Amino acid sequence: MLGNFSYKNATKLYFGDDSLKFLNDELPKYGKTVQLIYGGGSIKKNGIYDEVIKILKDNGKTVVEDSGVMPNPTVDKLREGVKIARENKVDFLLAVGGGSCCDYAKAVSVSVHCDDDPWEKYFIRFEEPDCKIVPVGCVLTMAGTGSEMNGGSVITNHEAKLKIGHVFGEDVMPKFSVLNPKYTMSLPKRQMVAGIYDIFNHICEQYFSGEDDNVSDYLAEALMKSVIRNSLVAVENPEDYEARSNIMWAATWALNTLISRGKSTDWMVHMLGQAVGAYTDATHGMTLAAVSLPYYRYIMPYGINKFARFATEVWGISGDSKTNEQLAGEGLAALEDWMKKLGLSLNITELGATPDMIDGITEATIILDGGYKVLTANEVKEILKESL
Amino acid sequence: MLGNFSYKNATKLYFGDDSLKFLNDELPKYGKTVQLIYGGGSIKKNGIYDEVIKILKDNGKTVVEDSGVMPNPTVDKLREGVKIARENKVDFLLAVGGGSCCDYAKAVSVSVHCDDDPWEKYFIRFEEPDCKIVPVGCVLTMAGTGSEMNGGSVITNHEAKLKIGHVFGEDVMPKFSVLNPKYTMSLPKRQMVAGIYDIFNHICEQYFSGEDDNVSDYLAEALMKSVIRNSLVAVENPEDYEARSNIMWAATWALNTLISRGKSTDWMVHMLGQAVGAYTDATHGMTLAAVSLPYYRYIMPYGINKFARFATEVWGISGDSKTNEQLAGEGLAALEDWMKKLGLSLNITELGATPDMIDGITEATIILDGGYKVLTANEVKEILKESL
Repeated sequence: MLGNFSYKNATKLYFGDDSLKFLNDELPKYGKTVQLIYGGGSIKKNGIYDEVIKILKDNGKTVVEDSGVMPNPTVDKLREGVKIARENKVDFLLAVGGGSCCDYAKAVSVSVHCDDDPWEKYFIRFEEPDCKIVPVGCVLTMAGTGSEMNGGSVITNHEAKLKIGHVFGEDVMPKFSVLNPKYTMSLPKRQMVAGIYDIFNHICEQYFSGEDDNVSDYLAEALMKSVIRNSLVAVENPEDYEARSNIMWAATWALNTLISRGKSTDWMVHMLGQAVGAYTDATHGMTLAAVSLPYYRYIMPYGINKFARFATEVWGISGDSKTNEQLAGEGLAALEDWMKKLGLSLNITELGATPDMIDGITEATIILDGGYKVLTANEVKEILKESL
Repeated sequence: MLGNFSYKNATKLYFGDDSLKFLNDELPKYGKTVQLIYGGGSIKKNGIYDEVIKILKDNGKTVVEDSGVMPNPTVDKLREGVKIARENKVDFLLAVGGGSCCDYAKAVSVSVHCDDDPWEKYFIRFEEPDCKIVPVGCVLTMAGTGSEMNGGSVITNHEAKLKIGHVFGEDVMPKFSVLNPKYTMSLPKRQMVAGIYDIFNHICEQYFSGEDDNVSDYLAEALMKSVIRNSLVAVENPEDYEARSNIMWAATWALNTLISRGKSTDWMVHMLGQAVGAYTDATHGMTLAAVSLPYYRYIMPYGINKFARFATEVWGISGDSKTNEQLAGEGLAALEDWMKKLGLSLNITELGATPDMIDGITEATIILDGGYKVLTANEVKEILKESL
């Protein structure tokens, strides 16, 4: 059943091939000094940087640069960003990039006016912000994380070998996000498919929990079907605007809290993948892909009805004269087939993990309790071995 | 394809069987004088009125009563509500009831501080509010219209025999809505199924437009399937909390702008139904039900691929060795079968319409251009005759 919950998501989304111009509508609402957050500089090659700078200048903003945000933003980088924001008394954080830039901006946003160390406060003690939040806006250049319309932020601590996410509340969500599907087209194919699998897995993490067949399950299936259909077009022709736009829009709705309403939610694939990421620094979506099939095959018996439904509703597999076990197995086989077509990494060895890391990755894996089976540490280790 | 659009919907939703208590979190954000808007007094019988009054008093509010909002709120009532708000300098409008109370509250909200006559300004000239908006909150007692999370307002002018809706922008959307599925259980079954068909038709109006199979189409199918499944449970057992909660949640998402993103949208069934409503004062959902099959059978050839998709994806009809025409016909037959199971009115005669009204209803029908076929006035008349 749909339990008791609340829902609010006030992020304004501007979607389309002309959406950047709406920065002109948003920027006047915020103060003069803008911290411009971006990654390794690809936005300088493809011209987005120049366009954004022009709009910032036209709106009379003072721009403070904060570049070099890495695919898995580190706690060291976070502390640097907080320092920049404090020294320049910034009024607004504008992230231009993928989910890592948005994640990082949100982590900076809740830390600027807090005295505590952000890693300890938010990623170890999981406290909520009790200081002024600096507002965030995003110009998204990669579809995947959903960070453009949620309060989530994932930060990596290489020293502690931990990659931890904190989902902050409504106030930390971006005030607006600009979604231009064309911006996602310049990504290498490997990044594109990693993002697509990240989207798909976000949906799975919420779908494979509870047996209640509520509205959220139907919406989750809808998003999965749309992602499957459009990913197969995009992997053949990455320039297909229709496919890229549907993928980008699905990504936003896959992780903005809607499809988790009334669900317990799992997130164990993310916990496993993030631990692998902390050891290998591999692309987030690929770490999820590499552990997914061993994980789902392991938990399938504990949620057999839902895995059978997954087969018929998402993959269109006929249920005639089949047991739920047969159907569930066929559904995961269809998932594997699709993952191979996209060219995803299906083992963690390919991502740089070695057998001697298994104990450490096991220890770095946070065990959550929302899925069909609460894993023991030993089960985590077996799934990771199976993923090698 | 998904075109260019923006999306923002900041209404906070409190969902569940304990959701009324969250009024205590919301009311302190607004001023002292609250206009309490409700209908014919059923909330006094079922105890909701007393609960709401207690919370208002506990929060130190001065309550101004505004009762008697009818199922199709009239322009005379609207003018009365505006007068009450002005005379009492109200700070906040709290609607407790179904979609008509929410619709009415929004119409009052945009009219209190405007000098123009609201009917002329908003429902004839379709202007946007250019005056201060009084904030609105809703406690919903009936699932159907989606008014709890959108900017829409439908007002009836009996003198002019017109029932017209205006969808206002983001600022007019309710600040919060309390959704308690238990509140919907006291409704007579006929009202329940009328609300269910209203939900279903909202989805159809957005689904049957464009041929692009974008994310919105998948989400629309998900909502339709959930409504079909749960309506068949609820019509047998109106006290089934799970079914009523899924219906209530689907209703909100069926008309809060999400599934219209990237779509042209049709709304001709609503235009036909509203014209019938202006002549008969019949329940909104029933007027939609009564004109739907004649309308969809008429436009089916112009959107044949989508009607075929409707058959396979929504009704699970096998497409093997069938033409799109066959499939589309079977989909509408399945729709008719479901409507009969719910006990919906399938003709306007049952609602009080007579052949001599057809010319007038035809004239009162606003013709829109977002569907598969822009109707002529003569086609409107033929569809209405077919609906008798």
